[in-house]
Amino acid sequence: MSRWREKYIEADSEIREKSPLVHHITNYVVMNVTANVTLAMGASPVMAHDSQEVEEMVAFASAFVINIGTLSPHWVKAMLSAGKKAKELGVPVILDPVGAGATSLRTEVSNRIMTEVCPDVVRGNQAEVTTLAGGVADIHGVDSLESGEVPVELFRELAEAANAVICVTGPIDWVTDGSRVLRVENGDPMMSNVTGTGCSASAAVAVFNCSGLPRLEASAIGLAVFGSCGEVAAENSQGPGSFQVAILDALHNAPGLDLGASLRISEL
Amino acid sequence: MSRWREKYIEADSEIREKSPLVHHITNYVVMNVTANVTLAMGASPVMAHDSQEVEEMVAFASAFVINIGTLSPHWVKAMLSAGKKAKELGVPVILDPVGAGATSLRTEVSNRIMTEVCPDVVRGNQAEVTTLAGGVADIHGVDSLESGEVPVELFRELAEAANAVICVTGPIDWVTDGSRVLRVENGDPMMSNVTGTGCSASAAVAVFNCSGLPRLEASAIGLAVFGSCGEVAAENSQGPGSFQVAILDALHNAPGLDLGASLRISEL
Amino acid sequence: MSRWREKYIEADSEIREKSPLVHHITNYVVMNVTANVTLAMGASPVMAHDSQEVEEMVAFASAFVINIGTLSPHWVKAMLSAGKKAKELGVPVILDPVGAGATSLRTEVSNRIMTEVCPDVVRGNQAEVTTLAGGVADIHGVDSLESGEVPVELFRELAEAANAVICVTGPIDWVTDGSRVLRVENGDPMMSNVTGTGCSASAAVAVFNCSGLPRLEASAIGLAVFGSCGEVAAENSQGPGSFQVAILDALHNAPGLDLGASLRISEL
Repeated sequence: MSRWREKYIEADSEIREKSPLVHHITNYVVMNVTANVTLAMGASPVMAHDSQEVEEMVAFASAFVINIGTLSPHWVKAMLSAGKKAKELGVPVILDPVGAGATSLRTEVSNRIMTEVCPDVVRGNQAEVTTLAGGVADIHGVDSLESGEVPVELFRELAEAANAVICVTGPIDWVTDGSRVLRVENGDPMMSNVTGTGCSASAAVAVFNCSGLPRLEASAIGLAVFGSCGEVAAENSQGPGSFQVAILDALHNAPGLDLGASLRISEL
Repeated sequence: MSRWREKYIEADSEIREKSPLVHHITNYVVMNVTANVTLAMGASPVMAHDSQEVEEMVAFASAFVINIGTLSPHWVKAMLSAGKKAKELGVPVILDPVGAGATSLRTEVSNRIMTEVCPDVVRGNQAEVTTLAGGVADIHGVDSLESGEVPVELFRELAEAANAVICVTGPIDWVTDGSRVLRVENGDPMMSNVTGTGCSASAAVAVFNCSGLPRLEASAIGLAVFGSCGEVAAENSQGPGSFQVAILDALHNAPGLDLGASLRISEL
Repeated sequence: MSRWREKYIEADSEIREKSPLVHHITNYVVMNVTANVTLAMGASPVMAHDSQEVEEMVAFASAFVINIGTLSPHWVKAMLSAGKKAKELGVPVILDPVGAGATSLRTEVSNRIMTEVCPDVVRGNQAEVTTLAGGVADIHGVDSLESGEVPVELFRELAEAANAVICVTGPIDWVTDGSRVLRVENGDPMMSNVTGTGCSASAAVAVFNCSGLPRLEASAIGLAVFGSCGEVAAENSQGPGSFQVAILDALHNAPGLDLGASLRISEL
């Protein structure tokens, strides 16, 4: 555990010192929230979504988040062009395929982004990620899952096929780059009572991918830090309203909370 | 009163157990707020506004909210097609005609939704609802209102003509299906100091229309619960910032607050 | 100082009594926040961004805010037409040129608004305002600035050339109409840890421009009040989450806080 603590402290200091720019093309519901999460973690958020400027903007960024939570055609166009530009420039791309599997539009757009942009990291829930596994990597086996079973091997195969770090969040988070598989056990049930928690987790992953850490480790630490601050917030709140306030405070005050000791990351 | 308490408790349990999906096409200002209100009341929100996916999305929903607070042509198109699909599938449609009467666009779009979609429930303030009464139902008499008079009979006529439950919120809320008229007296003046209170009330009405209750009763209980949580929040806050936090906490914790006893619903 | 206090108290009473309408065409990230800031300061916000209704809406307004934080072509069109209409009707226009200088789109749109709309007031940070100075007023000298130097004379020249009040916010705020230069020293470092603080400051400037005060003084008082409430909030919060709550409470409760005594406005 002390290895993760050390990596976290170093990455966190790096981020808070350099305040890297994170460009988000994200959904209307969470824009304010994920901008504030990005800021509270020590990075600088920028939202820009028009094709006329996204390639220019992403060139300044240290990470680029694509979140498909409220899609429309102009936005999809900008997501693709900014995503390609980011890849060309070596800016890590984090995809949050919100609702993939729920509507054809979301499934198709997610698949297009996977194949045309090739994101470096994907953060979704189990339903979204298994949708990508079926569509992009043509990985079968989802149908034969027992109810309640978590298809960790499927996630690993998707990571391998897509050459991406795959993060699957839920009561336990799984993070895999196709060879290694990490398990993150931070978080609190109250997180599911607040809109945009998944989107905020993606922002946290993006922020830690601005540090010098390898993507797999950066992503796992991002999720662990976010979950750990959720635990702190749950102790300091009485419901989802005060929880949202408390998690932003905790993320901002993280350096003084000795979170390193409470990160629960383990390797399979 | 104990009849309303019983109905509320049953509906609330039903909602929190099943977590029904509420699809919102709503305005940019309140999306985060109404998503959180929907969640805090035990339902699941989804925002999707593009014509390419709204008909597919609304098919999964137990209620559909159309809120015209920040209109543009693509959104209107999606509101109409999703609204028609919802009606076809028996998904209750709740219209919030924000600003009807203030600009021609808002008046025209509200009237189109009234006549082309035929929403099951409308929730607006007095100015918005009287605009609909003039435009849709061609109900006269607004001009002859004494200043300060609440035209309850006009609301009832509109409900009858539009075959919808009409909810008019203000210091006192009125809910009518054209034959019965209910009066709801929950709420706190602080609610008018927070943006999106009306929109959140519409979300609350939508959530209770996912329970098995008849529309008239579901709508009145939704408003009474929201107003009652506003009363709790006012006691636990020092201004509009802390009020917003406290009302989300109260909505989430409602089952433990014995709200049933404080719902002030009466029949004319 | 007592002169500013007196002016503030009078303007604040006027605003809270009349509740003037402030029309915003602003970015998605801060819409909820700036609507709530507008309300907490005693004015009434309305957001409307479509060309079909903005000219009609702005005609009801006592001030009009154009904020370019998340641009797209349809929005730019509406910004320009509503801005021109506002000027025609004598409604003060406040421009927040978010990100001017960061991308060509933002620089070009800001310059177009400056030359085609001629806003009455501009509120930006130093980078944004110096970009406008270079583009609109063709004022040179930015290149020769010593690092860290604040080019107050440049701001004054821009104000003169653009016939506008220029507000440049930072650790110290500068407000000039081209002849007089005011210095505002309210605020707290926590304000930079919350997204939309600059946008909220622009809203505060807009609200005070609804009072009868001359633009220069109204703008300086708006910034001082906002900064002063930030100071109150910093004392009552533990991080950026609770800070946002506390500043809205402070803005709402301002009349009871005797802010007048803590406004730090001085004339160069």
